[in-house]
Amino acid sequence: MNIKYEEKGVCAPKGFKAAGIHVGFRKNKKKRDLALIVSDCMCQVAAVYTKNKVKSAPYLVNREHLKDGKAVAVICNSGNANTCAPNGLEIANATCRLTAGALGIEEKDVIVCSTGVIGEPMCIEPFETGIPKVVKKLTYNGSEAAAHAIMTTDTHVKETAISFTIGSKKCHMGAIAKGSGMINPNMATMLCFITTDVQISSAMLQKALDADILDSFNQISIDGDTSTNDTVAVLANGLAGNKAIAEDGEDFRKFCQALRTVSTQICRGIAKDGEGASKLIECIVSGASDKNAARKVSKSVIRSELVKTAMFGEDANWGRVLCAVGYAEAEFNVDNVDIALASAGGELRVCTCSTAKDFDEELAKKVLAEDEIKILVNLNQGDAEAIAYGCDLTYDYVRINGRYRT
Amino acid sequence: MNIKYEEKGVCAPKGFKAAGIHVGFRKNKKKRDLALIVSDCMCQVAAVYTKNKVKSAPYLVNREHLKDGKAVAVICNSGNANTCAPNGLEIANATCRLTAGALGIEEKDVIVCSTGVIGEPMCIEPFETGIPKVVKKLTYNGSEAAAHAIMTTDTHVKETAISFTIGSKKCHMGAIAKGSGMINPNMATMLCFITTDVQISSAMLQKALDADILDSFNQISIDGDTSTNDTVAVLANGLAGNKAIAEDGEDFRKFCQALRTVSTQICRGIAKDGEGASKLIECIVSGASDKNAARKVSKSVIRSELVKTAMFGEDANWGRVLCAVGYAEAEFNVDNVDIALASAGGELRVCTCSTAKDFDEELAKKVLAEDEIKILVNLNQGDAEAIAYGCDLTYDYVRINGRYRT
Repeated sequence: MNIKYEEKGVCAPKGFKAAGIHVGFRKNKKKRDLALIVSDCMCQVAAVYTKNKVKSAPYLVNREHLKDGKAVAVICNSGNANTCAPNGLEIANATCRLTAGALGIEEKDVIVCSTGVIGEPMCIEPFETGIPKVVKKLTYNGSEAAAHAIMTTDTHVKETAISFTIGSKKCHMGAIAKGSGMINPNMATMLCFITTDVQISSAMLQKALDADILDSFNQISIDGDTSTNDTVAVLANGLAGNKAIAEDGEDFRKFCQALRTVSTQICRGIAKDGEGASKLIECIVSGASDKNAARKVSKSVIRSELVKTAMFGEDANWGRVLCAVGYAEAEFNVDNVDIALASAGGELRVCTCSTAKDFDEELAKKVLAEDEIKILVNLNQGDAEAIAYGCDLTYDYVRINGRYRT
Repeated sequence: MNIKYEEKGVCAPKGFKAAGIHVGFRKNKKKRDLALIVSDCMCQVAAVYTKNKVKSAPYLVNREHLKDGKAVAVICNSGNANTCAPNGLEIANATCRLTAGALGIEEKDVIVCSTGVIGEPMCIEPFETGIPKVVKKLTYNGSEAAAHAIMTTDTHVKETAISFTIGSKKCHMGAIAKGSGMINPNMATMLCFITTDVQISSAMLQKALDADILDSFNQISIDGDTSTNDTVAVLANGLAGNKAIAEDGEDFRKFCQALRTVSTQICRGIAKDGEGASKLIECIVSGASDKNAARKVSKSVIRSELVKTAMFGEDANWGRVLCAVGYAEAEFNVDNVDIALASAGGELRVCTCSTAKDFDEELAKKVLAEDEIKILVNLNQGDAEAIAYGCDLTYDYVRINGRYRT
């Protein structure tokens, strides 16, 4: 399938406007803190949410609003997570009402999200004054502003877009996301909004998303903390004019491939910009007897604090990798594991058949000096493979999280 | 039951000698790196090991040696974990042979343990020259030297001892342990050797230990990494002369209580001295509907990197505590959770019925400035309770682990 990268993020698909402005959730007036994404027409929607038992108030609202699998707009603030706030549900509902009123749509067609500190009182005022303003700012080029407005401790904007063909129709898909901390998605990650102009039923959209997250968002870990607000939502407005995808087949397969391309880009972006991260770490597990074992082993390695600090220290301490392989909660044997470290600096084999292998410390330094490192683990017992995405653990992670509330 | 703290660690029980010397596993000649504990007579033994699929060579040897539930001596080096070393099994067996020869006992009555870096080649020479020397140093006052010799990145010796009465007999129990990094025991922790002069069958000793670790060693987490070498071994030589404990009953109950006292002391010591730690954190979960839920929730909080960094930053960011409660893998409801923070500085209620509660930031500072903090979580749905032991996540953890091998 011919996939091309495009500009304009969530506004790359036809008929999507976006905006992001400062409305006062943050003290810093230069920080945008309210984002809005709106489709010109009704969208089919699929969404996945956090598996944390503690849910944000917006989650409760969205679960109701998306019962019909349809929506037109996404409104999202940063700076307060609207979780465990005494008046949270009331405010999440009021936010949808205000957004619907300003856009002339129905309240149930609004998706609402919040990200920031948990358990702080939430105010309605920034929404009351901000929503009319953000609606006025909507443009077909507003993706980057919206992407900025959902950032918390992120240091880089996460935004991507592609074009591809289904039937004879040119289709698009775009996404913005926020990541950084409290990230160990157990279904979805943090917040990610994906737009597409593909015509697809909400049932098939949900099927595509449910399958995709198992190998994308669920395979990221920054710090092992599964947030209370994680949401991935896909909005498909159908304006590409392709024959509607309502069942399995070639078109659905292409759509899933497009979705994987976008989600992988976003996942790598989130992992690389993990709180305090200096390196993107990918753990690629091959030779597993089944897909689930491959996923569990790769995620176990990515989550290990000892592996993460070793990568920060640019230390080829592969024993920690094998240790994390060994405590992964899956069935497999560990007698024949090969481990290598790879980057633009070269490839270094450090362990063969679960036993130490002499290696060149100079090459190790060169490989680990890069800012994107691959940890290659071959279990040598089958054909299944999986990748997990993470980052190193640095002084900055401790600094950022030691003083987040203040 | 009247339990008194005593001096002399593993040498507090009658008939146990110990020693610890430098033999060359470490470059620093001031660092002891070989420990030996020997009983004057045959001991009943119980042991628990790591659940990591990757096991150290000593584990494989001990599993064989302890099939008869008996042993006389424990030999342990620090500086090299003897895990994934090409000649590891050969060296572990040779170590037992050398120790048995020097002590005039059978090889199968020696327990061997190693701790340090994984995957480095292991040498026999330090054992060959060191074992005769460490045997000569054995004394009834050698516990502290042995405790020093098993330390790796530990900054404090972990050693405790108590006396208590079973029947009319005064009994003793002592322990030494090493902790610090790669600690998320999934059965046992790192290395802990417990001695006692109580007369008890190896079956009852194993039963007591299996029950104890569920609420002691298995409830510690420093960094979530389950080591390949974790071992807890209890040696009971029977010299207290009590009526042998061979079944459930009052005497066994007393023995279990003594064991819990010793294991709790050791667990708190390990958690407080976690790599880079500046604070001991205990999470006490009450009001759970069952014991397992209480254990899972308390350990989830203790493991959270965001809770750990907040404690380091002395920030009452309780939302992170509730978040970690919410993603604990157990069945319970989260609608009615109370959270408080307590220390010698006072007690601060921060969350009632899963909702934010206004609190005094000055009191928060006072509570969190202490070096032992309790996080109190009441699920308000039953009577079960559990405690988990951990520490804060600091710059020093990153520094220590970014450069461990070098």
